[in-house]
Amino acid sequence: MPRQTMRKGRFQHAPDPRLQALNASIGFDKRLYAQDIAGSKAHSQMLAHCGILTKKESEKICEALDAIAKEIAEERFPFDAALEDIHMNIEAALGEKVGAALAGKLHTARSRNDQVALDFRLYIREEIDALQQALAALQKALVSQARAHAATIMPGFTHLQNGQPITFGHHCLAYVEMLARDRARLKDARRRVNQNPLGAGALAGTSFPIDRQRVAKTLRLEGVAANALDAVSDRDFALETLSAAAIIAMHLSRLAEEIVLWASPAFAFVSLPEAYMTGSSMMPQKKNPDAAELIRAQLGRAAGAFTDLLIVMKALPLAYAKDMQQDKEAVFQSLDALKTSLPAMTGMIAGLKVHEEAMRRMAAKGYPLATDLADWLVQEKKVPFREAHAQVGALIRRAEKTGGDLAKLQWDEIRAIIPSMTQDAYDGFSLEKAVARRVSYGGTAPKEVSARAEEWRKRLIGEKPERDQRKDQK
Amino acid sequence: MPRQTMRKGRFQHAPDPRLQALNASIGFDKRLYAQDIAGSKAHSQMLAHCGILTKKESEKICEALDAIAKEIAEERFPFDAALEDIHMNIEAALGEKVGAALAGKLHTARSRNDQVALDFRLYIREEIDALQQALAALQKALVSQARAHAATIMPGFTHLQNGQPITFGHHCLAYVEMLARDRARLKDARRRVNQNPLGAGALAGTSFPIDRQRVAKTLRLEGVAANALDAVSDRDFALETLSAAAIIAMHLSRLAEEIVLWASPAFAFVSLPEAYMTGSSMMPQKKNPDAAELIRAQLGRAAGAFTDLLIVMKALPLAYAKDMQQDKEAVFQSLDALKTSLPAMTGMIAGLKVHEEAMRRMAAKGYPLATDLADWLVQEKKVPFREAHAQVGALIRRAEKTGGDLAKLQWDEIRAIIPSMTQDAYDGFSLEKAVARRVSYGGTAPKEVSARAEEWRKRLIGEKPERDQRKDQK
Amino acid sequence: MPRQTMRKGRFQHAPDPRLQALNASIGFDKRLYAQDIAGSKAHSQMLAHCGILTKKESEKICEALDAIAKEIAEERFPFDAALEDIHMNIEAALGEKVGAALAGKLHTARSRNDQVALDFRLYIREEIDALQQALAALQKALVSQARAHAATIMPGFTHLQNGQPITFGHHCLAYVEMLARDRARLKDARRRVNQNPLGAGALAGTSFPIDRQRVAKTLRLEGVAANALDAVSDRDFALETLSAAAIIAMHLSRLAEEIVLWASPAFAFVSLPEAYMTGSSMMPQKKNPDAAELIRAQLGRAAGAFTDLLIVMKALPLAYAKDMQQDKEAVFQSLDALKTSLPAMTGMIAGLKVHEEAMRRMAAKGYPLATDLADWLVQEKKVPFREAHAQVGALIRRAEKTGGDLAKLQWDEIRAIIPSMTQDAYDGFSLEKAVARRVSYGGTAPKEVSARAEEWRKRLIGEKPERDQRKDQK
Amino acid sequence: MPRQTMRKGRFQHAPDPRLQALNASIGFDKRLYAQDIAGSKAHSQMLAHCGILTKKESEKICEALDAIAKEIAEERFPFDAALEDIHMNIEAALGEKVGAALAGKLHTARSRNDQVALDFRLYIREEIDALQQALAALQKALVSQARAHAATIMPGFTHLQNGQPITFGHHCLAYVEMLARDRARLKDARRRVNQNPLGAGALAGTSFPIDRQRVAKTLRLEGVAANALDAVSDRDFALETLSAAAIIAMHLSRLAEEIVLWASPAFAFVSLPEAYMTGSSMMPQKKNPDAAELIRAQLGRAAGAFTDLLIVMKALPLAYAKDMQQDKEAVFQSLDALKTSLPAMTGMIAGLKVHEEAMRRMAAKGYPLATDLADWLVQEKKVPFREAHAQVGALIRRAEKTGGDLAKLQWDEIRAIIPSMTQDAYDGFSLEKAVARRVSYGGTAPKEVSARAEEWRKRLIGEKPERDQRKDQK
Repeated sequence: MPRQTMRKGRFQHAPDPRLQALNASIGFDKRLYAQDIAGSKAHSQMLAHCGILTKKESEKICEALDAIAKEIAEERFPFDAALEDIHMNIEAALGEKVGAALAGKLHTARSRNDQVALDFRLYIREEIDALQQALAALQKALVSQARAHAATIMPGFTHLQNGQPITFGHHCLAYVEMLARDRARLKDARRRVNQNPLGAGALAGTSFPIDRQRVAKTLRLEGVAANALDAVSDRDFALETLSAAAIIAMHLSRLAEEIVLWASPAFAFVSLPEAYMTGSSMMPQKKNPDAAELIRAQLGRAAGAFTDLLIVMKALPLAYAKDMQQDKEAVFQSLDALKTSLPAMTGMIAGLKVHEEAMRRMAAKGYPLATDLADWLVQEKKVPFREAHAQVGALIRRAEKTGGDLAKLQWDEIRAIIPSMTQDAYDGFSLEKAVARRVSYGGTAPKEVSARAEEWRKRLIGEKPERDQRKDQK
Repeated sequence: MPRQTMRKGRFQHAPDPRLQALNASIGFDKRLYAQDIAGSKAHSQMLAHCGILTKKESEKICEALDAIAKEIAEERFPFDAALEDIHMNIEAALGEKVGAALAGKLHTARSRNDQVALDFRLYIREEIDALQQALAALQKALVSQARAHAATIMPGFTHLQNGQPITFGHHCLAYVEMLARDRARLKDARRRVNQNPLGAGALAGTSFPIDRQRVAKTLRLEGVAANALDAVSDRDFALETLSAAAIIAMHLSRLAEEIVLWASPAFAFVSLPEAYMTGSSMMPQKKNPDAAELIRAQLGRAAGAFTDLLIVMKALPLAYAKDMQQDKEAVFQSLDALKTSLPAMTGMIAGLKVHEEAMRRMAAKGYPLATDLADWLVQEKKVPFREAHAQVGALIRRAEKTGGDLAKLQWDEIRAIIPSMTQDAYDGFSLEKAVARRVSYGGTAPKEVSARAEEWRKRLIGEKPERDQRKDQK
Repeated sequence: MPRQTMRKGRFQHAPDPRLQALNASIGFDKRLYAQDIAGSKAHSQMLAHCGILTKKESEKICEALDAIAKEIAEERFPFDAALEDIHMNIEAALGEKVGAALAGKLHTARSRNDQVALDFRLYIREEIDALQQALAALQKALVSQARAHAATIMPGFTHLQNGQPITFGHHCLAYVEMLARDRARLKDARRRVNQNPLGAGALAGTSFPIDRQRVAKTLRLEGVAANALDAVSDRDFALETLSAAAIIAMHLSRLAEEIVLWASPAFAFVSLPEAYMTGSSMMPQKKNPDAAELIRAQLGRAAGAFTDLLIVMKALPLAYAKDMQQDKEAVFQSLDALKTSLPAMTGMIAGLKVHEEAMRRMAAKGYPLATDLADWLVQEKKVPFREAHAQVGALIRRAEKTGGDLAKLQWDEIRAIIPSMTQDAYDGFSLEKAVARRVSYGGTAPKEVSARAEEWRKRLIGEKPERDQRKDQK
Repeated sequence: MPRQTMRKGRFQHAPDPRLQALNASIGFDKRLYAQDIAGSKAHSQMLAHCGILTKKESEKICEALDAIAKEIAEERFPFDAALEDIHMNIEAALGEKVGAALAGKLHTARSRNDQVALDFRLYIREEIDALQQALAALQKALVSQARAHAATIMPGFTHLQNGQPITFGHHCLAYVEMLARDRARLKDARRRVNQNPLGAGALAGTSFPIDRQRVAKTLRLEGVAANALDAVSDRDFALETLSAAAIIAMHLSRLAEEIVLWASPAFAFVSLPEAYMTGSSMMPQKKNPDAAELIRAQLGRAAGAFTDLLIVMKALPLAYAKDMQQDKEAVFQSLDALKTSLPAMTGMIAGLKVHEEAMRRMAAKGYPLATDLADWLVQEKKVPFREAHAQVGALIRRAEKTGGDLAKLQWDEIRAIIPSMTQDAYDGFSLEKAVARRVSYGGTAPKEVSARAEEWRKRLIGEKPERDQRKDQK
């Protein structure tokens, strides 16, 4: 039954086309069709269970809804923009299949407000589950590189200046940790997404003897919203998901930036798989890391979406206001950005070819063993750390004046700056020894990196995905 | 000629589908087709003028481009997602029409980088011109209400508490001023949008003897970008437009909020045209101000878009990086929000029915003439303003204790609080007199409001729209 | 020992004043003094436990640090801007107390990078605990109002239009639910904040035989960061806290907006405690809800801070970069906004005087029982819901044409529109009956509201605050 | 006269400390003291001119205000937090100097609302003028480098991959253009900032016979706000300035990123002046580009501030609401970020030491002359551009397979791929020739770069700063 009819009772005039242009959401909310149908089925089954519909009526409705789902999935469904949104489109189609009277009964004890909230929660829940899998895939690709390169020496930068040598495996695992936090955040968010607003009605609850727990159980929801007003006014679940998504996008921007740097001729640390590069229309030689750049840019979309919805929700009086219809575009924008970025990043990482020699060469630049020398003075010669730090700094400054080579310094010059220096000390220093020495938990020593990588490998293998929700809802 | 071919020279492998999913922009950049074709025509004509193409070649290209434009306009053009973007789609179609060799010549002295920058600038220029007209239409609707209600008394709120009485016309003109600033900002932005980047090549300029001024003239651009690197790296023109759009959306959110308030039963100041309201699926009596709410929410989209692009541009090394392809979605998002909001707001304002009695009734609440009494003490009795303010405040506090009615206070009670009060003073006070008295420039006195409204009416009638650019580019 | 000394080894030139203006953080990071000292004490005790310091050295350091903490707490500490940050200020003071040599040893196996990360985590952990208490206090004030007004009828708005009658208690509990989600989010965030980065060194871990678990235990941290690079590059904990804070600020903006509306003469639903209002410099009668407005505005600060730090972190290559020093101002900005807002909101809610008559009067406007009539047709007369909805809508439209009073309609007029209407039906309808009827879980029925409120009361009483961390760290 | 007194008339209770904590702005708005005093002087002089004050009264007020200004400038003024804001502090001090009665008269025909708006406009106007100078200084430093390095070859990157050789001077001038747009935006914004709101009163204008133009003239304002409601509700001037500031910060982030890259060992293109670098607490060898990193991060502050204020303004009903007090912190945050960043950047650029050899070496990598070869085929051999592009791409792919050196390819191999290649062609190619050839307007040819740089040098010398406003206001 079309909204025209709904409008017909109360309204004299048709909506202005300018209202419709603003108001129509069918262009984007059709994505929610599967959730809308799953929700309607659960609602109708509950109504039957509670004696508000007959069992037969409910079955008839569910069958018709399944048929509609199939039509939409197979792209045979005739969407009608005049029906404004996905809910009215499905409701009208249901009316054609089972008659307007029975279709009209499905809306008993239900408002568009709680229906929309439910659909959107189900949708986001599934997106979170898909994100979890995409994040896990990227973690696996990173762990795989970490295992292969647990001992591959690269420069450890701070401020993009050489700090201390580290290993490429160590670097890869840093991102594995970031993604692990992302996943933990999504998991926490999912619990708050996965609540049942249905039964809140428009804002006050309902006088029909419904069973909200039953709907929750059917749809595998973990709880029931405890206040009807809040249930229809709340978009925290979307905001929390958007903020987790923005942080994911930020992590991806950092990895993407590093890939762009590493692939540039200045670093030449890696070759990207050609399938992730593109050429130039003007410059025939170009192979550009477009995928990495596009991923880096997605933070804009993700952060913009969070800001967007937060602004929409600002200062809205309870309960539902139409402003809240804006929630969907923001969520689609952000999650779509991640859904295209994560697999592309996974493909790139998996196909990354590491140039070990270039990494090692760069790692040797700029006195990367200075900290080791200072530590040696502390540990072996009992020089207080700050004093050791100052002596080594002075040594390097001296070396720079004479061409930048510590090896060229005379022994008495060295002694003048670092009194406790001994000839055998030098033997203790090399990039390999420097990384091997850093065995503290989480340190860059290859055996430590291997241990952490192995832990991750096992953990990621052991994981079971969330049950496929789409299946449950059928 | 498809990008596959372009890729073929340098690349061994096809792009990964995951790169393509990320990279394909044809879904949104097809909107730029008219601008792309206008730009290509101007480029080819300039190449002919400079002897790089023959006149005949250029004519052949231009005819074919016109044919393509027509096909697209008539929705007969077969877009090919594999060709990724609008530029490759048009280039490939051109190749089919004039042969790959001649089509290939069009790219002489041009890179995708400067081509895209040009197309996007032309697009935004036209959007700005359309916005100007939509803003002017809203101004006219507001001025029309202001003229009709120059003397209609309403409460002047600060903090949503009664401050002083004003007129509804005065209130409407406040928005006319806001929109005037919006238009001034867009006008200033347009000058910086309307510059020619073409000829910058990929980033370094070109060795072909081109004439960049000529292209600018053909396309009615006001200047030529003076640095090739900057020309292809710059998206200021988009950002500046987005910030102006965000401020417009903020203004609309304020007006929309006021409409929601005024239409609520608590105020009942206005009735909205039914064509801008919608019903409820559950509550049969509802007529909701959906249009106003949706407009209020668009600030989210507009602000999110500015944040989005600003983040994209953060810390990008020169020159072009693929991140910048993200610019278009942000701009479309924001400007589309305004393009649906402005006409809907104009329609609502034009159809607004003002309930003068309700406004006047509310204006009388809460001692709105207190300032007038204080001013009278200052002007007639030479009481210093701060002292007058304190006395009137004390009088009101006393009145509140005895039921809130100043009229019920005994004369000696009044004199105890305001020694210089005289019996005839009361006669000077009424809502009408209060508004009539505020004749300072920009004040709420009906004659002042009428004068300002009349000024605006004339100014808006006198305006000429920017010449239709779309026409020029043909 | 001042940074000058640290710089002295390696550098020839003093920092430019313009670098210092940019770089100095002592103006804001002095807030972290207690955390810095707690962290240093835990570090020194661990170093002693591991034999890197002697027990005596550690004790000497800890005593001096305690003395410094006391000086700062008592505002006797001479901060020196030339020492740039809180860490150098404390380190220099320590040097003066225990000698530069011993003070220098404290930095063994520690870098500024992991030290700063630890301090900031401890700080945010305490802020979260303080927020939890402030949120609980506001919940209690709301629950208290909910219990007092479980049956106080008010209009239930959607789109700020009358929807169905609800109770004020029901409305208050909606915010209790929102705040409960806020608290759950903070609790989840706290687990990820409460991790130990110390021992990561600059980025690679350390070769000193340290015990990171021990430091964690001393400081009551729940885990140890498993990758040194990530440990110093990660600001997720700040971002996650900021996003939770932004959502809290959004909730407060909604409640603040409602208070502004309710306190306006148009609604006159509540009187605010005078202690939360301010006057006007010009209008003597004014009493403005400034506190509510200021709280509403804090969303700007909170959302801006999240955007700020997200932008700062965009595309930063690993590991630490100086950009990350910006993290603190963003966090202070957001959390300070909440720290001043929450108690003010609690005070306002606690002192809110509810005008029951005004609420009830407004609740009666605009056919609020239309849904009940439609529901009655469904339940008693078996009219399908959509049909019932249309009939009731038509009845109201008819009533509006004849002055808006349903009671004035002739009986046969009613029957013409709603064939199954019966004379006794009317008796079933009243605002009180309407709310009493909505007994579904989370519905607005007074007995349901009381039950939920009572649940909350007990839950909030039973709560134990997190152990005072400040105490632990001493 | 303290606000206590103002409150005393109307209010029974003192403000709650929690309101005061939220409401007090003296901590930040004391910065506006000079503007507040300048505005009050202009107001009092106008009142005297219009016969509302006597000339003597006005003079007495102005003298006292000057004395207060001096006290504040010399840090002798006893700010009182209980007086909440700068306006009350000055008003109270004035009362002490000239008596409460006369001080009270200064507030005639003025409200805090229009007073605050004026002060803030004057403040921002001065900040814009200061920014203009700081931007000009940075432009000069860049032009100076551009002139010195008009012919210094560096790699022209797109996607951080070698594209075509350019000159460092060309690169510097790209930023000069960006900054020129920034300055144009600020100039446009300044016109809209520089308007007089005084005389708007609280929101309705005033009945006193004031002369708003006169105040404008005294304060060198360019216009008078034409609607009193708008005048006190408008913060566009702050928002527009904040958006211009955000774009400036974005530009700085790009230049800062490039400096970080160029200073890293991977590029080693430049040495930064030591005075702009800092060391590490752990790693003795470090010299970090902290200044560049801190500047890069300021985009967060600047973008966050725009978002902040935009959110604050969302959906605020007219006229003034207390939310708007939040405007100042956002503006200070953003403009302060620029005020510390711009001089630091100028110092860094001025002191940048360019390593020409390293730049040239990198410019030679990755077939940077491929475009030149393709262009040659087009120009000399009449090969259509797209075909030439494909042939050169194929040649490079072949070269890569045999070690990456075009010179090692056999002549018949080359001919097989590029049939029209001739032996003499090679002679035409070198980095120097490639840059020299790009003489199109804005191209990278040294003579073109020199010409543009010289133009800029002259333009920047010729500039006159805005008259010092601070002087005018005295």
